[in-house]
Amino acid sequence: MKRILLVHGPNLNLTGIREPGIYGRNSLAAINEEVVQKCARLGMECNVFQSNSEGEIIDRLHAAMDDCDGIIINAGAYTHYSYAIRDAISAVRLPTVEVHMSNVHAREEFRHHSVIAPVCAGTIAGFGKESYLLAVDAVKALVEE
Amino acid sequence: MKRILLVHGPNLNLTGIREPGIYGRNSLAAINEEVVQKCARLGMECNVFQSNSEGEIIDRLHAAMDDCDGIIINAGAYTHYSYAIRDAISAVRLPTVEVHMSNVHAREEFRHHSVIAPVCAGTIAGFGKESYLLAVDAVKALVEE
Amino acid sequence: MKRILLVHGPNLNLTGIREPGIYGRNSLAAINEEVVQKCARLGMECNVFQSNSEGEIIDRLHAAMDDCDGIIINAGAYTHYSYAIRDAISAVRLPTVEVHMSNVHAREEFRHHSVIAPVCAGTIAGFGKESYLLAVDAVKALVEE
Amino acid sequence: MKRILLVHGPNLNLTGIREPGIYGRNSLAAINEEVVQKCARLGMECNVFQSNSEGEIIDRLHAAMDDCDGIIINAGAYTHYSYAIRDAISAVRLPTVEVHMSNVHAREEFRHHSVIAPVCAGTIAGFGKESYLLAVDAVKALVEE
Amino acid sequence: MKRILLVHGPNLNLTGIREPGIYGRNSLAAINEEVVQKCARLGMECNVFQSNSEGEIIDRLHAAMDDCDGIIINAGAYTHYSYAIRDAISAVRLPTVEVHMSNVHAREEFRHHSVIAPVCAGTIAGFGKESYLLAVDAVKALVEE
Amino acid sequence: MKRILLVHGPNLNLTGIREPGIYGRNSLAAINEEVVQKCARLGMECNVFQSNSEGEIIDRLHAAMDDCDGIIINAGAYTHYSYAIRDAISAVRLPTVEVHMSNVHAREEFRHHSVIAPVCAGTIAGFGKESYLLAVDAVKALVEE
Amino acid sequence: MKRILLVHGPNLNLTGIREPGIYGRNSLAAINEEVVQKCARLGMECNVFQSNSEGEIIDRLHAAMDDCDGIIINAGAYTHYSYAIRDAISAVRLPTVEVHMSNVHAREEFRHHSVIAPVCAGTIAGFGKESYLLAVDAVKALVEE
Amino acid sequence: MKRILLVHGPNLNLTGIREPGIYGRNSLAAINEEVVQKCARLGMECNVFQSNSEGEIIDRLHAAMDDCDGIIINAGAYTHYSYAIRDAISAVRLPTVEVHMSNVHAREEFRHHSVIAPVCAGTIAGFGKESYLLAVDAVKALVEE
Amino acid sequence: MKRILLVHGPNLNLTGIREPGIYGRNSLAAINEEVVQKCARLGMECNVFQSNSEGEIIDRLHAAMDDCDGIIINAGAYTHYSYAIRDAISAVRLPTVEVHMSNVHAREEFRHHSVIAPVCAGTIAGFGKESYLLAVDAVKALVEE
Amino acid sequence: MKRILLVHGPNLNLTGIREPGIYGRNSLAAINEEVVQKCARLGMECNVFQSNSEGEIIDRLHAAMDDCDGIIINAGAYTHYSYAIRDAISAVRLPTVEVHMSNVHAREEFRHHSVIAPVCAGTIAGFGKESYLLAVDAVKALVEE
Amino acid sequence: MKRILLVHGPNLNLTGIREPGIYGRNSLAAINEEVVQKCARLGMECNVFQSNSEGEIIDRLHAAMDDCDGIIINAGAYTHYSYAIRDAISAVRLPTVEVHMSNVHAREEFRHHSVIAPVCAGTIAGFGKESYLLAVDAVKALVEE
Amino acid sequence: MKRILLVHGPNLNLTGIREPGIYGRNSLAAINEEVVQKCARLGMECNVFQSNSEGEIIDRLHAAMDDCDGIIINAGAYTHYSYAIRDAISAVRLPTVEVHMSNVHAREEFRHHSVIAPVCAGTIAGFGKESYLLAVDAVKALVEE
Repeated sequence: MKRILLVHGPNLNLTGIREPGIYGRNSLAAINEEVVQKCARLGMECNVFQSNSEGEIIDRLHAAMDDCDGIIINAGAYTHYSYAIRDAISAVRLPTVEVHMSNVHAREEFRHHSVIAPVCAGTIAGFGKESYLLAVDAVKALVEE
Repeated sequence: MKRILLVHGPNLNLTGIREPGIYGRNSLAAINEEVVQKCARLGMECNVFQSNSEGEIIDRLHAAMDDCDGIIINAGAYTHYSYAIRDAISAVRLPTVEVHMSNVHAREEFRHHSVIAPVCAGTIAGFGKESYLLAVDAVKALVEE
Repeated sequence: MKRILLVHGPNLNLTGIREPGIYGRNSLAAINEEVVQKCARLGMECNVFQSNSEGEIIDRLHAAMDDCDGIIINAGAYTHYSYAIRDAISAVRLPTVEVHMSNVHAREEFRHHSVIAPVCAGTIAGFGKESYLLAVDAVKALVEE
Repeated sequence: MKRILLVHGPNLNLTGIREPGIYGRNSLAAINEEVVQKCARLGMECNVFQSNSEGEIIDRLHAAMDDCDGIIINAGAYTHYSYAIRDAISAVRLPTVEVHMSNVHAREEFRHHSVIAPVCAGTIAGFGKESYLLAVDAVKALVEE
Repeated sequence: MKRILLVHGPNLNLTGIREPGIYGRNSLAAINEEVVQKCARLGMECNVFQSNSEGEIIDRLHAAMDDCDGIIINAGAYTHYSYAIRDAISAVRLPTVEVHMSNVHAREEFRHHSVIAPVCAGTIAGFGKESYLLAVDAVKALVEE
Repeated sequence: MKRILLVHGPNLNLTGIREPGIYGRNSLAAINEEVVQKCARLGMECNVFQSNSEGEIIDRLHAAMDDCDGIIINAGAYTHYSYAIRDAISAVRLPTVEVHMSNVHAREEFRHHSVIAPVCAGTIAGFGKESYLLAVDAVKALVEE
Repeated sequence: MKRILLVHGPNLNLTGIREPGIYGRNSLAAINEEVVQKCARLGMECNVFQSNSEGEIIDRLHAAMDDCDGIIINAGAYTHYSYAIRDAISAVRLPTVEVHMSNVHAREEFRHHSVIAPVCAGTIAGFGKESYLLAVDAVKALVEE
Repeated sequence: MKRILLVHGPNLNLTGIREPGIYGRNSLAAINEEVVQKCARLGMECNVFQSNSEGEIIDRLHAAMDDCDGIIINAGAYTHYSYAIRDAISAVRLPTVEVHMSNVHAREEFRHHSVIAPVCAGTIAGFGKESYLLAVDAVKALVEE
Repeated sequence: MKRILLVHGPNLNLTGIREPGIYGRNSLAAINEEVVQKCARLGMECNVFQSNSEGEIIDRLHAAMDDCDGIIINAGAYTHYSYAIRDAISAVRLPTVEVHMSNVHAREEFRHHSVIAPVCAGTIAGFGKESYLLAVDAVKALVEE
Repeated sequence: MKRILLVHGPNLNLTGIREPGIYGRNSLAAINEEVVQKCARLGMECNVFQSNSEGEIIDRLHAAMDDCDGIIINAGAYTHYSYAIRDAISAVRLPTVEVHMSNVHAREEFRHHSVIAPVCAGTIAGFGKESYLLAVDAVKALVEE
Repeated sequence: MKRILLVHGPNLNLTGIREPGIYGRNSLAAINEEVVQKCARLGMECNVFQSNSEGEIIDRLHAAMDDCDGIIINAGAYTHYSYAIRDAISAVRLPTVEVHMSNVHAREEFRHHSVIAPVCAGTIAGFGKESYLLAVDAVKALVEE
Repeated sequence: MKRILLVHGPNLNLTGIREPGIYGRNSLAAINEEVVQKCARLGMECNVFQSNSEGEIIDRLHAAMDDCDGIIINAGAYTHYSYAIRDAISAVRLPTVEVHMSNVHAREEFRHHSVIAPVCAGTIAGFGKESYLLAVDAVKALVEE
């Protein structure tokens, strides 16, 4: 059974509370629940992790080398400057899908650039909660290649 | 029944022939076939259009105001400079999903910027043929909102 | 009798439909009608042309060498990147007035720069339908110099 | 009766003397005379003001809140850096038409950018003395809206 | 009674030790003491927090949604690149005052730009220990609005 | 008794009239009144000066060498380009506090950069009328050092 | 017998008419005649194609996969922004020589950069009609490698 | 007898007071005295003008068309942004020598660029009071050409 | 006996595992062993620290004020953006040697710039494991100065 | 008989040794031999010069004013920064052809810009040894004009 | 007796031949003669040196430490990129006057920036042969300080 | 026995004389003596070369293909712009260590970028004379690999 690591970066714990106009009204717990269930339906196990700390996210990504086959990551604002997370993704060498709930290209200039995108397999952005669910299908295809 | 317009931009008619290392070995016809069938399974009709001409793509997008409910578009290289296609997407006011088969962020610098992304609902990039199939799910969610 | 070519670029066929907050509620046909009538009143003949295709716009501009004395052009989004249309205007050597309905300087950054302005006689922007009517007066002065 | 303020910025008092190849051979007095007469013919009163001082131009714009309904301004070189004049135009909240006699986009790089354009209704540039006369028509349409 | 959260970012624990020419000779404890007392005099409670960790600062800001009415933050060097802290401030939706002891605009280029300023109510910089005391007055006005 | 010069730059005479959403509804006279009274309470004399002219502001700053001990300045739009006012502040060698009513970092790009900040002691921005009152405290600390 | 495709981009149909100071006084037909004859002398067949349309140029390049062994292209103004033509050249994988009649590096800034050069074998620019004749020799060497 | 206009821009009235480490200890009056005397020795008349106002400097430059044969100008900080003074120098068409007492290239970045240099005959910078005296020789050569 | 702090930043715990083509096949433990032994041979004590957390690295650097005489640091990806670590190095005022195993100038653009280099004594980069051993000699010379 | 100067810049003496994947396996002597013979066949004399020294290249170009009618130059890396060689080419006023063996636009960013191109008649790049032979034809046309 | 070194950089040996419209018709020998005579009249000895080689210019500047008291240098095109000459001027620690015959600020963009200006005492540019003669006066004042 | 080439670039012959605050008080001869002796101790022969001429440095690097096994180079100011030296290092294909005595990242902006670093094995900077001695160890490891 393939195991997926779902990583949520800084401030995503406030999803459903923070700026619902942008991020929707689903709590993070509700989204995680849907993702885990979809993974289960597709015969995959999903481990969920959220942290506001860059270092803890890197630690968790490293651990994935031992306990996961693929990664879905919404790195929040770290997306735009954390070359350390980029190096971690690159180092663990697992197929990784970058996810954003909002359409980052329609927001502030600084959100248009992702430093982790070049080391991910691909990106899904702009579909709210759906972004995560699409990422499950995407990562499934990657881990089963 | 919801109707989807699938637009392929310049050089995508060579898919399967051109740089298979990047774009995979599926011909465009084979990809279209899969997309149309998935739409059908999901109760949607899919109209396919490919052109190497910016003007023809704009014409087709305009026509979608009358015959479609949502759009999936891989604008090829026009992605990076066609403000005219951007204006067309913006004008027709249909939910639009931007698709790329390759991970554009891992390629040449000029491919990192999309001028159409800000007027699309969201973007899916990097999963080869899968990008299109994921886009079908994404556009379905949008047209049924 | 002086002959004027009025060229409308991409998406302007949707004028009156597309983003009326920006472009007003007059249809392009209604605007053309007013321009043609004003030309007639001023003793000039007006040929109207619209295309979403960069190549067709260039073809029409070339033809103007034989059948027109002056040009009014709203190049739409091509304004911002079509060096090919710029070269066409420069080549036909007819007095040319650049027109925009909206105040392009109060919109997105990419609309602030016109690559065709340096080869036009002058520019009129921001007055909606009036921009075209003012351009008729402007081009009249130019062709009669 | 609508009242129009016509503002000429720095060095424009030398019009007809300074670089006639660019600005034409009409003196500023002659141009003002034509503008005032055209306004009169259109049922508008025109107040003319010229100053080389940024501060005096701002003072006069402020006063327009009490004695004018619309503004025509050729801010000369201040066009390119006077954010103070921009703020004044923005503050007085009267419909304002930006005018240039020369085609600023065909001259030195620094003349391509106008800091006041975003707070004006629109711009007319490149038609010499005609630019002012066209602006009278433009501002008339604006003040009568 | 209004409750204020005072956040000190990285290296500020060394205040009074580190580069006294720039930051003065008051220890952070002494400054905190003065701030707490001033808050008390003004009828406010002040919670003090210092961390060198971006993640812990974000965690504390999130907690402020439950236990504070306003925020004073000196984000230290994170000021210049932590979009994650910016998102946290934006998400908690409490009136926030940005503080710097030194005049950041008179120091290295990289200190001239604050990524958190746009989501704060305002900024006070350059007055050493006084910056914090002024911020108490500023945040008082904001939380009592 | 310490004497403070309060300088208001261009368009600030319209405070309370101009864009009240940004600058509040207090007239400049009312603000000055409050500042003068606060100075008096703190045992300081306050001289108020407003001009839309860069040159007059420089003249007044020069005169401060003879009649003032500290300066509070809101240079309005000159903040962003008047290197001449910067040189004047630098030359008079009096402690100077830069003030802005609005949060300039949350507005247009051009307002993010202050050319006078590096020669001031510090900056207070974003608190409306309060910004001036806080500056009185700040300058008091500076002139009594 | 090797077959060469000679592609002329936008406005080149006006060669001999347009700005003869820059492009010389030979008509395009005359140049084509010379190129075809030189090819014939060297035992090669030359197919000539001109279009002002980016899409038609791409279509013709695609067709070259079936009917040509090498390409000579003067993409006109498309040289400077058509990433779509670049992709087409890259996709057809035929040895390609970029040609310009004028010395593009001695003209406007925007003509200094070619987006198609990196995917061509080489470039010949600045020799007027001779550029094409030299390109025949160059492409001959390439197709016979 | 040739007449020279010597123009001093903003803050130069403080010369000898302001930052003597940079500008030396000679008062402006003393420098003017030396310049006037040197002019007299060389058979030229020197008119001296200082103003902190951009507009007044422009007015004085315009007047020079009637009463002077050459200009020496130290535009102070206006050197770096006053396109209006640049236009004035260009308009009056008198040989003009740009002067700076300090070596502007060894100071802050913003002082490295002069917007008036391109319309002056030449520049002399870095020699303190001597810069003015050298400029007298330079302008003499120019007015006697 | 001089005491050296050896700091390894994010992802360096994977050394020997991660991209061995770039970082070599020595595990971090093996490298640390060699560094500690070399220090011992040279009469110095070496404390080793690795963390993926920016905040923990700053905490450890602060502690070095009490227990170390010199620092060797490979800040990993934090090298390129952690102004907070820069401030920490600057604050502790111990001689510091920056180390990189790979030649950062031959890799991606973002790795060419180090924000910590200006506050270190010097840099050694590109020699794999040897970089650390050279740094021991370098820091020895610095702490014994 | 027309005389041609062939100049090879720095490191070209290693041609055939250095990076044969880029520059081919022909030694510079062999290439020179072919160029001299082709010149002879075309009734021209060819003088060959190679130096790694910018100054010697300039000296040789100056001498060409007396002993040559046209120049072929491959300035090697000096192409990208030697404004001194540019000035020399401009000064000697002989028709000059710029040559590169490799396609400089497909290599490192710094090789995309030539500072000498604007003062040459034209450029030939990307055809290996052929580039020189084509340049012989090109310069022949120029010297016989 | 003070000794002055006069250094002419690349291509200046062609003065009087090269582009006389820009550099005048005086040969370098004639200019040198005038400079030497003026030095003699002022009681100074002048050593003249010209080279097209950056290295030889540096060698000569070094030698000036032993045989000269001041330097006048026109570094020609090396002005714009030779940080090596800059370092040489800085190292020899003699008062140095930078000279240009033409007004470099009115020519190509690349000539607007001097990398040697920050280490010279001052600059004189734009007065043709006179620039050198003025520099003699300037350097005299410096060496006699 | 391995042979090392030690190359010193422009102005380094003045080491010990020039700016001792930056480069220390050891003469170049003394440094060379130490380097040669250390090489001897390590069983390597060291050839020392210094030149202020870019061309001579390139010549010497080329010769190293025949007489050396590794290179230590301090290219002085050429470090920052000599793409010709970069190409020479790249062409000779010997392991090369870049050395700087000062911490170039703590000095002027232009010294932060090295054009030769990407083709060297590694860099050592900031340790004064020690930088050279460390480089001996570094190059030893490289030539013995």
